Amino acid sequence: MKRNILVIPGDGIGPEVTTWGKAVLEEIAKGFGHDFSYDEALMGHAAIEVTGNPLPDETLEKAQKSDAILFGAVGHAKYDNDPSLKVRPEQGLLKIRKELGLYANLRPILLFDELLNASSIKANILKGTDILFFRELTGDVYFGEKTRSEDKNTASDLMIYHRYEVERIAHKAFEAAMKRRKKLCSVDKANVLESSRLWRETVQNIAKQYPEVETTHMFIDNAAMQLIKDPKQFDVVLTANLFGDILTDEASQIAGSMGMLASASVGESTGFFEPIHGSAHDITGKNLANPLASILSVSLMLEIGFGLLEEAKVIIDAVDQVLKEGYRTGDIADETTKSDQILGTKEMGQLVLKYIAQ
Amino acid sequence: MKRNILVIPGDGIGPEVTTWGKAVLEEIAKGFGHDFSYDEALMGHAAIEVTGNPLPDETLEKAQKSDAILFGAVGHAKYDNDPSLKVRPEQGLLKIRKELGLYANLRPILLFDELLNASSIKANILKGTDILFFRELTGDVYFGEKTRSEDKNTASDLMIYHRYEVERIAHKAFEAAMKRRKKLCSVDKANVLESSRLWRETVQNIAKQYPEVETTHMFIDNAAMQLIKDPKQFDVVLTANLFGDILTDEASQIAGSMGMLASASVGESTGFFEPIHGSAHDITGKNLANPLASILSVSLMLEIGFGLLEEAKVIIDAVDQVLKEGYRTGDIADETTKSDQILGTKEMGQLVLKYIAQ
Ligand SMILES: CC(C)[C@H](C(=O)O)[C@@H](O)C(=O)O
Ligand SMILES: CC(C)[C@H](C(=O)O)[C@@H](O)C(=O)O
Repeated sequence: MKRNILVIPGDGIGPEVTTWGKAVLEEIAKGFGHDFSYDEALMGHAAIEVTGNPLPDETLEKAQKSDAILFGAVGHAKYDNDPSLKVRPEQGLLKIRKELGLYANLRPILLFDELLNASSIKANILKGTDILFFRELTGDVYFGEKTRSEDKNTASDLMIYHRYEVERIAHKAFEAAMKRRKKLCSVDKANVLESSRLWRETVQNIAKQYPEVETTHMFIDNAAMQLIKDPKQFDVVLTANLFGDILTDEASQIAGSMGMLASASVGESTGFFEPIHGSAHDITGKNLANPLASILSVSLMLEIGFGLLEEAKVIIDAVDQVLKEGYRTGDIADETTKSDQILGTKEMGQLVLKYIAQ
Repeated sequence: MKRNILVIPGDGIGPEVTTWGKAVLEEIAKGFGHDFSYDEALMGHAAIEVTGNPLPDETLEKAQKSDAILFGAVGHAKYDNDPSLKVRPEQGLLKIRKELGLYANLRPILLFDELLNASSIKANILKGTDILFFRELTGDVYFGEKTRSEDKNTASDLMIYHRYEVERIAHKAFEAAMKRRKKLCSVDKANVLESSRLWRETVQNIAKQYPEVETTHMFIDNAAMQLIKDPKQFDVVLTANLFGDILTDEASQIAGSMGMLASASVGESTGFFEPIHGSAHDITGKNLANPLASILSVSLMLEIGFGLLEEAKVIIDAVDQVLKEGYRTGDIADETTKSDQILGTKEMGQLVLKYIAQ
């Protein structure tokens, strides 16, 4: 298979982890005889530094021409500490999601048995959990009009949804549910928000087309609670952009660490694959970041982006094997991890590569 | 002390649990020689049934005249299943919060040692956790303009904050932090939302007036994760209405159950005291609801509303004693609970009353 892949390392630990994602792609291409070619582009703070623009035109053009994008992270402490800065790294990420029509963000909560004890949640509560989040990614308060009054004392963001936006992601989520345990929970705040009432109405209507799927609706506050109380109750979770942002980060604690979770953003054309973790400036450049989320993003690229199921599985098996042998990065280590089995970014990356090569 | 207390039982399990909150108030009044008088009023679905209005004028008038309000819950499955209904129970709660100027909602995460094992989170992660949430309660996307297009296909809610709204609750939160461990974490989504940037800017400014308080800022997605990963890192958490709604429900898992958490809403005048749990229609009328959140709401009323610290402590000690002796409602029972120590709403209420009387 011939594919053009654009790598956008971004900021913070983005470049460190993406290096290993890309190395895994190369190893897979070699092993399976695929013809993957690579290009690289700037986004976020890295792009602002060079071009003044968090999403340079060149990056967008390359993205549009590629078959898939492997992305790292964006963000920088400078902007977090100064809310008044007008040009911000995250704008690059939001803009590329919008421009590429990446309206469905799939975030599987993949639980490796070996990591059951790395979580702050009890192993018996976690065991058997397998959730697939569908987070809407190009609407909601993320993209509604923003205002700031002239005296600077009032600020607003419009939380807005159109029916077609809910319909298209709902279809994707129901289709996925049909291939899984046939349960779908839609999360909203319909007891307070009009946009959530439109969301709920629309999901209720689409649900009629999937009578085999057991559909439920939950308020976001309750969902944030149920996810910790009893994560096994969920199969597919469908939710809006903001609620999905919050719930999936929270759900990372089920998988033991944010450093384990990958995501796939799909929609109109090119797929976009990225870890759910952020730029993590506090550990940048220290060889401490967990590269597994980037590596698992590559497995999602192969599976969802290219339909290469066998290749995707080779990656997951390699990660599984590394974990089975007791190797951990710091974020997923627990009391029982031997100190010589706690690896840096590079050593973990190399080990996964080695198992893939075998 | 002479005080007029308005009881608003509301919907679902509201009446069942509020009965015990009120009984505790009566017992305290008797024991300490206070002159508490009571009135009762309708709100939510219960009010809609009788008057067509989720917050009848009569209820609001009684509320304005009272010294404190003990509230149960509002909500009903009928409305949750039909997003198109225009008159909704929750409107009553939102309106009374607004009308009474209850802009600060205090939600202490009070962790009884006996319940360490009732949580899905590991006891060693929980032990020592003591968080006080300040949730803004009369602004945000809850109260911004709502629209629905004529063709019904587009819906919006305005997420909006004014500087003074952030300032007044920030002062309350910093003052509380000064009396506690002097740490305050403000939660927002300033990397995406303009209203969050105003929030962050304003908190940064107010923080200068409290140089002794160690102030940090966290994005909501990260906060939802950190709360489970390492809850002990938090002292006072200050956040907006919607984020506070989500985070505090999630935080209920720290305390073992939603059925243990009380809240105090304060601001311009009369204080409003309520469990953080909702109407829970699934268990209504079955003598299954945990009355402790309502009983602990009464302790907050005595402490925060009336400054009766000793009386408040008597209640907490009684709850503690009941738990120490092994008694539980179903929601906080674990494997080690003996079956004859699992109590219904009524039995749990009576037991707490008995210990208070002693
Ligand atoms: C960096 C930020 C804009 C982004 C988001 O909120 O969508 C991130 O948290 C994510 O989840 O991908
Ligand atoms: C019932 C609902 C409107 C309410 C809210 O969202 O504020 C509830 O969840 C709460 O937290 O008090």
